[in-house]
Amino acid sequence: MNALARPMRLGLFLQGAGHHVAGWRHPEAEFGGENLGLIQRIAATAEAGHFDLLFLADGLTTSADAHPSFVARLEPVALLSALAMSTRHIGLAATMSTTYTEPFHLARAFASLDHISGGRAAWNAVTTSYARSSANFMRGQHPSHDDRYAIAEEFIDVVRGLWDSFADDAFVKDKARGVYVEPGRVHTLSHQGRFFTVGGPLNVSRPPQGHPVIIQSGSSGPGQRLAARVGEIIFTAQQTQAEGQAFREGLHAQVREAGRDPGHVMVLPGVCPVIGGTEAEAKALYAQLQGGIDPAAAILLLNDRLGHDVSGYDLDGPLPDLPQSDQLQSRARLLTDLARRENLTLRELYYLVAGARGHRIVWGTPEQVADALEEWFRGGAADGFNIMPPFFPTQFERFVEDVVPILRRRGLVRGEYTGATLRDNLGLPRPPNRFFPG
Amino acid sequence: MNALARPMRLGLFLQGAGHHVAGWRHPEAEFGGENLGLIQRIAATAEAGHFDLLFLADGLTTSADAHPSFVARLEPVALLSALAMSTRHIGLAATMSTTYTEPFHLARAFASLDHISGGRAAWNAVTTSYARSSANFMRGQHPSHDDRYAIAEEFIDVVRGLWDSFADDAFVKDKARGVYVEPGRVHTLSHQGRFFTVGGPLNVSRPPQGHPVIIQSGSSGPGQRLAARVGEIIFTAQQTQAEGQAFREGLHAQVREAGRDPGHVMVLPGVCPVIGGTEAEAKALYAQLQGGIDPAAAILLLNDRLGHDVSGYDLDGPLPDLPQSDQLQSRARLLTDLARRENLTLRELYYLVAGARGHRIVWGTPEQVADALEEWFRGGAADGFNIMPPFFPTQFERFVEDVVPILRRRGLVRGEYTGATLRDNLGLPRPPNRFFPG
Repeated sequence: MNALARPMRLGLFLQGAGHHVAGWRHPEAEFGGENLGLIQRIAATAEAGHFDLLFLADGLTTSADAHPSFVARLEPVALLSALAMSTRHIGLAATMSTTYTEPFHLARAFASLDHISGGRAAWNAVTTSYARSSANFMRGQHPSHDDRYAIAEEFIDVVRGLWDSFADDAFVKDKARGVYVEPGRVHTLSHQGRFFTVGGPLNVSRPPQGHPVIIQSGSSGPGQRLAARVGEIIFTAQQTQAEGQAFREGLHAQVREAGRDPGHVMVLPGVCPVIGGTEAEAKALYAQLQGGIDPAAAILLLNDRLGHDVSGYDLDGPLPDLPQSDQLQSRARLLTDLARRENLTLRELYYLVAGARGHRIVWGTPEQVADALEEWFRGGAADGFNIMPPFFPTQFERFVEDVVPILRRRGLVRGEYTGATLRDNLGLPRPPNRFFPG
Repeated sequence: MNALARPMRLGLFLQGAGHHVAGWRHPEAEFGGENLGLIQRIAATAEAGHFDLLFLADGLTTSADAHPSFVARLEPVALLSALAMSTRHIGLAATMSTTYTEPFHLARAFASLDHISGGRAAWNAVTTSYARSSANFMRGQHPSHDDRYAIAEEFIDVVRGLWDSFADDAFVKDKARGVYVEPGRVHTLSHQGRFFTVGGPLNVSRPPQGHPVIIQSGSSGPGQRLAARVGEIIFTAQQTQAEGQAFREGLHAQVREAGRDPGHVMVLPGVCPVIGGTEAEAKALYAQLQGGIDPAAAILLLNDRLGHDVSGYDLDGPLPDLPQSDQLQSRARLLTDLARRENLTLRELYYLVAGARGHRIVWGTPEQVADALEEWFRGGAADGFNIMPPFFPTQFERFVEDVVPILRRRGLVRGEYTGATLRDNLGLPRPPNRFFPG
């Protein structure tokens, strides 16, 4: 089974209180974004299921009425450094913003994680959508959607340049000659761009993977351009197979245009699997979860995803026409399309968003969940999935114990880790050093 | 032995290639600031010796001619998060700059480390001395020595305020009521000061220790004022017992003036112990280390510590009169005093600095090293020591295996960890929450 030409990739989108906004209220739910013991158990389960990635989202603001998973969460690189010690193979992906971080600090954090984990780090390079984040930082005004992407483009280039500060063989550590590092094998970046001036070199040696794997999660026009140029894993939120196929095809065209191999770019839509022993059981569980939603919290989540306040509108009427938001453009468009296509009322829409924040929800038996994943995968709508359990740990254990074996029997996923690093496991090339090629 | 009223505190100043600039060249030396396996072994040794702290310095620039320990080193919070997994009791102290970091990011990183380690985090709050660091960051011009301390004062207050964002009991996680966090137990800081505007709340719950332990390492006038107001461990570099006593007494007076208990402020001078089985062996080892020094590298280190280029002066003449530098004021003054007092030539001074960067070097048998530590401790010049082995791991193993048992027999150090958190172990109080007292 390890000879799969193109195995289905599986990420676990790890989130303290689960992905369903009311998931934590389920009797079986254990939770807490700061509950290290639980998180270690979940990571071990993911590794037992040969998942490719542990994926952590992040945010730079909080409030008492936020999604329970977002109120408090450990800093992702610190958490993944700890998880690197209790896992051996799984990739460790953290989200960090290009809008409110310094490229030097970020390059150093991910290079460190790559060293600590023996080459398993991945960086989800995001722009910060929420204007209120600016209140926590010195930079002043929140940049516009387009500027955020212009900043991200330059930021990522600086970070990749810093990762190439040292040749792979720079640290000769020659006791006899007294030469610790070869001066000629160190590069000073001296970057001066539109947004950043960064001298270098970075004070961490080149990461084991050359560069940590780059993940991109924005699907707007600028987001797709960025993904096509630098993304290796693309995390998306399509609701239908046709949308998924169209997105992946469009992205592949842009990837080729950028001179890259589409085989080195993997599209992973988020999926929230609600699993029951029978279809009726799964349906009942989904109903139970939906029943736990606080309507006031749900409407806040919907406002958040749309970038507009819709609480004044008739809840049993259609989604009103809204101008484009400067916030989450692509995610908002997918939701709007969904509401129009399915003729959803506002109330139906916000209940749906409360489930998995606009990501696809699949409820059913293990067979049915496996079918749903296989269909998208074989249909070219996805290279794999970022699994978003409604609550932890039992719903995720169910996925690993009951769904993964079905996928394995069908020859869709691997039954072992084949490489030493995340890049090896994903079949991604190790980037050459820009300054010390060959 | 656990009833010691005031045990001698021991920190291990962990540094990849050792503290002596040529230590890494010793045949027994293993090294690498990114060599996790070695670092884990050293941490285990420190814990076996019941050390209070693992201490990591840091810097935000590098160059090929830097001290080998500084050329490349992992980001300290990421490294300590990993070490938290392979240790159980020892405190985990990381240096992070108040000059080139955002208070929100820093507060979150250390709160996360405190959660991950079960209450063992400490923050060495430094200002960045080196103007060249500014080249790696957006903030533009490097602030002056006085401004750096004014920034640090405000920065630390913001960080402590952010740590108090949530009451200790804020996260009720009441499944029946559907209340994850009590809205009335969350505080929004809304800080607007001279240097920072930070909204809050922090998106991490209150650290187990309330606040991670605060370490302060500057000994200039502004540095001492800051230490007196907020420092709990003070890391210094005195060369003589009289200097140590005078510093500690002066600090205690300032601590009392600030309304704090001097018993809650521990002064730990750095000491580099060079240990041999006999006095002759220790002397030979020290000579061997000094013989490995590259004079060109040594003069760079001296320039660095003085904040002035002295390479044009006669190496066999005295230290020239130099104007006060804006860089490392207190460390430069200690060195200047030492050169004058001992009539050192420039060459002698730079050989001395190359040994332990201006920290005290003690060479001798285990008994002699223990004597030297005991004398300062009983003489009121220190509450303990930050141990700076010339190279790793054997010189540190020697300290733990041969010196620590002597200190224990003399009733100077503890033979066990008595508390659950670093504060407990150090006898430091848990700070009350500024916004939710009691």
